[in-house]
Amino acid sequence: MVNRPFRKLMRVEAALRLSFGSVETVKGIERVRIERALGRVLARQIVAKKYLPPHDIAVVDGYAVRSIDLRHPSRKPVTLRLVGRSKLGELSRIRIRRGETVAVATGSMVPRGGDAAVMIEDTKMRGGNRVEFRESIKPLEGVTRRGDDLKPGRVVLERGSRLRPEDIGVLKALGLTSVQVVRRVRVAILSTGDELVNKARRGDSAKTVDLNRPILKGMLRELDASVVDLGIVKDDEAAIRAALRRGLSDADLVLVTAGSSVGNSDLVSRCIDSLGKPGMIVHGVAMRPAMPTGVAVIEGKPIVSLPGFPVSAVFAFRVFVRPLIAKLVGAPDTHDPTITATLSERIHRIKGGRTFVRVRVKKVRSGYVAVPVAAQRSSILTSIVDANGIVTIPESVSQIDAGTKVWVTLTGAVS
Amino acid sequence: MVNRPFRKLMRVEAALRLSFGSVETVKGIERVRIERALGRVLARQIVAKKYLPPHDIAVVDGYAVRSIDLRHPSRKPVTLRLVGRSKLGELSRIRIRRGETVAVATGSMVPRGGDAAVMIEDTKMRGGNRVEFRESIKPLEGVTRRGDDLKPGRVVLERGSRLRPEDIGVLKALGLTSVQVVRRVRVAILSTGDELVNKARRGDSAKTVDLNRPILKGMLRELDASVVDLGIVKDDEAAIRAALRRGLSDADLVLVTAGSSVGNSDLVSRCIDSLGKPGMIVHGVAMRPAMPTGVAVIEGKPIVSLPGFPVSAVFAFRVFVRPLIAKLVGAPDTHDPTITATLSERIHRIKGGRTFVRVRVKKVRSGYVAVPVAAQRSSILTSIVDANGIVTIPESVSQIDAGTKVWVTLTGAVS
Repeated sequence: MVNRPFRKLMRVEAALRLSFGSVETVKGIERVRIERALGRVLARQIVAKKYLPPHDIAVVDGYAVRSIDLRHPSRKPVTLRLVGRSKLGELSRIRIRRGETVAVATGSMVPRGGDAAVMIEDTKMRGGNRVEFRESIKPLEGVTRRGDDLKPGRVVLERGSRLRPEDIGVLKALGLTSVQVVRRVRVAILSTGDELVNKARRGDSAKTVDLNRPILKGMLRELDASVVDLGIVKDDEAAIRAALRRGLSDADLVLVTAGSSVGNSDLVSRCIDSLGKPGMIVHGVAMRPAMPTGVAVIEGKPIVSLPGFPVSAVFAFRVFVRPLIAKLVGAPDTHDPTITATLSERIHRIKGGRTFVRVRVKKVRSGYVAVPVAAQRSSILTSIVDANGIVTIPESVSQIDAGTKVWVTLTGAVS
Repeated sequence: MVNRPFRKLMRVEAALRLSFGSVETVKGIERVRIERALGRVLARQIVAKKYLPPHDIAVVDGYAVRSIDLRHPSRKPVTLRLVGRSKLGELSRIRIRRGETVAVATGSMVPRGGDAAVMIEDTKMRGGNRVEFRESIKPLEGVTRRGDDLKPGRVVLERGSRLRPEDIGVLKALGLTSVQVVRRVRVAILSTGDELVNKARRGDSAKTVDLNRPILKGMLRELDASVVDLGIVKDDEAAIRAALRRGLSDADLVLVTAGSSVGNSDLVSRCIDSLGKPGMIVHGVAMRPAMPTGVAVIEGKPIVSLPGFPVSAVFAFRVFVRPLIAKLVGAPDTHDPTITATLSERIHRIKGGRTFVRVRVKKVRSGYVAVPVAAQRSSILTSIVDANGIVTIPESVSQIDAGTKVWVTLTGAVS
């Protein structure tokens, strides 16, 4: 009649397992230039086809030598004739012969004939072109050999790697100019509810500005997903169904946020179930906030039904949407920054599941202290805006005492 | 004559303190629409000018009531007349009178007259428009009052906040359409060295492809900085000086990476010192990799001289450039994701300072294990590409044994 309460709540892990079961990595692949590949996910393994470094290089500032020339310098210093400097840029044409040495800097090529490099600190100039060595040196000391970094055939980056700046560097080193990446995951978002508007209007005081779409867009952008914004949809079965259908056809994942009109949640569930099989598979999750989170799968495509309060929507996103997007793109889920902090006051788990307590972490002399923000209600947006961290109280714990060292997942900067 | 070795290495903290001393937050401010403000840093404090929520709202699915009507229901159930539903969207025009109730959903407005909301589970429908209540309720129960989230005058976000999705949400809730943010930090990058090229060319085997600029560009993009790419500059005093001067005039920070030709490092330091005061203030830092990191300040603008090997440049960036950019933009430095893992084998500090050991973190049944990558030399690019984490060995520790629980700073995904 009115809203059906969430009676049988599923535990977080069970709900996640169920949600993941029927979801597969997107198939689309695109080729992008490496300059534009940062943050994208590799669709194919990268195998080296070159040697890196391409030639032997010095790893010290000093002199390239034939180690055999310095076999017995402890008995008597050895003096070699300086026949070149890397400065000249002619190293590939020089050959070090018996009794000769070449000045090199860290990273420069070791000319043919040389098989070791001596640090400048262990040498002495004698006149303009003679260098004295007092220590012996083993072959390959002070040198990184051709192929020590990479040899042809070596796997450099696995499929599913999210490309970091250093990965772009190695792709460039291999001479690649473009790579095949998984296309961006497309996520459709819609907010439902007769009461929702995009902007506050005067004299319309029962209306609510839809904050969920702007917040979701930001979170999706941080995950490098593309957004298909389906806007606000009224509490009308046909309209909701049409929007969901469009989401399912245009996107890989649909996020629908609940309105705050009576019966909206039932209405949305009914619309989802009418679209295909298996329909709604998770009706409410044993966690606070975001207990009324629902998950559906329609012919392999997931729909996540997010609670209407932005605070709850953010937690539903963190717990369900982020890992789903990681699975869709075929990359491991990202880790949040975490720190350990001392809890400033006792916190309690809310009956009904895992509880996420929003805290403000501050740096103190002895480390960090985590202070729960004053209002923990999911109706209070500032409970996440004021917070820079989350303390999770697991299902098996009922309270955590003041003074306890706790893990804090950081959601913002600590100052 | 040739390269001067870094004899007096400065400890990391001392070098950071010195580098930070003469650097100030950039002055420029720009106004951006909130849709484009994600990740930007607020230049002005945000103070609420509205009430949030703008009216009392229900935080349960159920019935808005006058709590006085339910004063004694435990003696005898109270039945109230249902006079409206939030579904109708007419809540602002309804007034709850004695003996009346209105159906509400989580988030919907509580009509005038109502001062509490009862969960649907604690009620019973009696016919089509009568609701039975068996429990008493206190005023304000089940309700978040107008202004409980924000009241006019309350500071919402401090200057220096880097805007997160939830912050965009609260700006939207306040009715703001744009905000003033600190302009992006501009960072000039140049690589020096006769041996450097942008692309490998056949038959030019002593040349080195410049990997540092592509890697630095990626790292700067991740920090939302603008890049002024000054390209590769030959080992020529006039050319280097001209490039540095352009960097200082066009950017807030200049990053110059050392070439691997003999004398390059001296040459770059000399060029920097010739540009103004105080010039080079840090010549080498007691850390491995990236020991040859230098820092200069020219009339308040920092120049960081990065070692030539990409691995070293990445560490110099992490330790020096990232916090400098945070200071320039006026925001706290970001935290890295960290986890604790069991070290798979003994690791040693390298003589000469704090040592960053690159590891591959793997998930195992009991938690995480950190396996040092095989090659730790800074000449080996795959030492960072293969790694997804860093274990830091502080100056006071000479080794860490296998089996020790260590903190790992994550640099990539863990699978």
